[in-house]
Amino acid sequence: MLSVEHLQELFLKYLKKELFDQSPIELYEPVNYILQLGGKRLRPVLLLMGANLFSEDIDHALPAALSIEIFHNFSLVHDDIMDEAPLRRGQPTVHIKYGQNAGILSGDVMLILTYQYLNQLKDPSKLPAILKIFNQLAVEVCEGQQYDMNFETQDSVEIAAYLKMIELKTSVLIAGGLKMGALIGGADEEDANELYEFGRNIGIAFQLQDDILDTFGDPEKFGKKVGGDIAQNKKTFLLLSSMEQAKGKDRVDLMAALSENTDPAQKIKTVTSIYRKLKVQEQATELMEDYLQKAFVHLDRVKVESTRKILLKNLANQLMMREI
Amino acid sequence: MLSVEHLQELFLKYLKKELFDQSPIELYEPVNYILQLGGKRLRPVLLLMGANLFSEDIDHALPAALSIEIFHNFSLVHDDIMDEAPLRRGQPTVHIKYGQNAGILSGDVMLILTYQYLNQLKDPSKLPAILKIFNQLAVEVCEGQQYDMNFETQDSVEIAAYLKMIELKTSVLIAGGLKMGALIGGADEEDANELYEFGRNIGIAFQLQDDILDTFGDPEKFGKKVGGDIAQNKKTFLLLSSMEQAKGKDRVDLMAALSENTDPAQKIKTVTSIYRKLKVQEQATELMEDYLQKAFVHLDRVKVESTRKILLKNLANQLMMREI
Repeated sequence: MLSVEHLQELFLKYLKKELFDQSPIELYEPVNYILQLGGKRLRPVLLLMGANLFSEDIDHALPAALSIEIFHNFSLVHDDIMDEAPLRRGQPTVHIKYGQNAGILSGDVMLILTYQYLNQLKDPSKLPAILKIFNQLAVEVCEGQQYDMNFETQDSVEIAAYLKMIELKTSVLIAGGLKMGALIGGADEEDANELYEFGRNIGIAFQLQDDILDTFGDPEKFGKKVGGDIAQNKKTFLLLSSMEQAKGKDRVDLMAALSENTDPAQKIKTVTSIYRKLKVQEQATELMEDYLQKAFVHLDRVKVESTRKILLKNLANQLMMREI
Repeated sequence: MLSVEHLQELFLKYLKKELFDQSPIELYEPVNYILQLGGKRLRPVLLLMGANLFSEDIDHALPAALSIEIFHNFSLVHDDIMDEAPLRRGQPTVHIKYGQNAGILSGDVMLILTYQYLNQLKDPSKLPAILKIFNQLAVEVCEGQQYDMNFETQDSVEIAAYLKMIELKTSVLIAGGLKMGALIGGADEEDANELYEFGRNIGIAFQLQDDILDTFGDPEKFGKKVGGDIAQNKKTFLLLSSMEQAKGKDRVDLMAALSENTDPAQKIKTVTSIYRKLKVQEQATELMEDYLQKAFVHLDRVKVESTRKILLKNLANQLMMREI
């Protein structure tokens, strides 16, 4: 079993070799730019770990791993246009650096390139199954982004709808990547599905924790200012739960704080104190732990020696601790 | 062999059955809108004709035909955003009707849906070959759009670069669709390649004729005002050839007309008279006929009875006569 660091290194070496030097340069330069902005390359590494559970030869899973990474970056490029985001990983977003049209068209070609890499399977008889998984997750990521945009203008959002949105927008890519890796590595359908469920549950748990950390995290440890979600009225699990549960004066105060735009610091203070009173952090943590536990149940069911699963378990735990 | 009308009807029936009723509606409604805006459905019909050359059962080519049509419409949706086009087939473009974000995201999901339909081959062992053809044409269409955008801001464009651009932007979709249809219908690699070359050459000929008709066409017959390309300084074959060939006073007059924005009618008159003097219409016609002739040579080489090819020949001729 190869370590996370080893897999990251293998992946980065492969990525570097595969960078695009075709013409027209205006189309491919933004692709190389976003692919080299960094990041932990978790999605491709997870795919490779899925393959490595079942096979020692993971080189032939590298094209699919790159496919997942290109897809992820395609979605960042287009989402950043839709969200009018100026920065990505501390650097200018593609549409800011190269213009909106370059952002749209380079994103498009990236989406097509993902399919070129999927078509490099060592065993092409697996292509229909792999393509089916990938198409499904890709459609779902778009659906998740649409729900996320819809929520911005909706007065209220049901918790169930929110959980579905984060599943579509972030979890299915992790889940589908793990399943693809497993199948490429030689897993049977059953094990591949268990890994899918492992990834799906980990993804939701991770996102719930993201909501918690944005308000209650240690800014020194997580490198992020607290309260950003509150300042932006972002409909997180914490806010949606509070909106469901707040009564009387809490409700009045919460609604007043949400409609106020003058002093973010005061707003963060007010909303956080309502969160504390309603114990929504504890509720979110409990739910997150449910998902986490479910994830590990699915991983346990995968029919390989438990020693082979340790690295994947450790990675999941490190992810949740934000130690990677 | 099924007639063009019969194939159009079959395709439209299939398209209607396949329209998208999934959630979120904000994502799928624009997809249904653009797919139902009409058009002659030439690209899917050509794919079906490619299949029909080799097989009587063309029903199983319908998903690939829809794939090509969805891809074409995806490219229209995103190109219309990039070109800031308000109308498409006389109706509001997707980004005008539903907003830019809907245009980007619905376009993205359309591109993914094309791959879902490609993954419905009756014989999945053909998937790697079909996917390879499709990925190549899809990448090339993006490259063509990028070159087209580049040309807008370039002072001069070589004729060869222009021909390459129109090949990428419009021909490869027709060519690749025909090749995919042929392979689905059971053609061997050689015949499939001949059909690709047939489509590629027809596509370039068609586009060259488009350039000619925009300036010299009969507006009553072609339902388009003449001179639109000239009014917009569009770098067509006619303009690029003139820029290459004009000397002395012609050159001065041409450059003056191009930099003038006050009176489009006068500009169209001046530039058209330079075109006539330099005989660029004749040059374009000659080149177009070369491509057309090449196209038919490739079609002739396809190893099926010549009676089977009559419908395809007729369609190509009708297309060139703008009778369809």
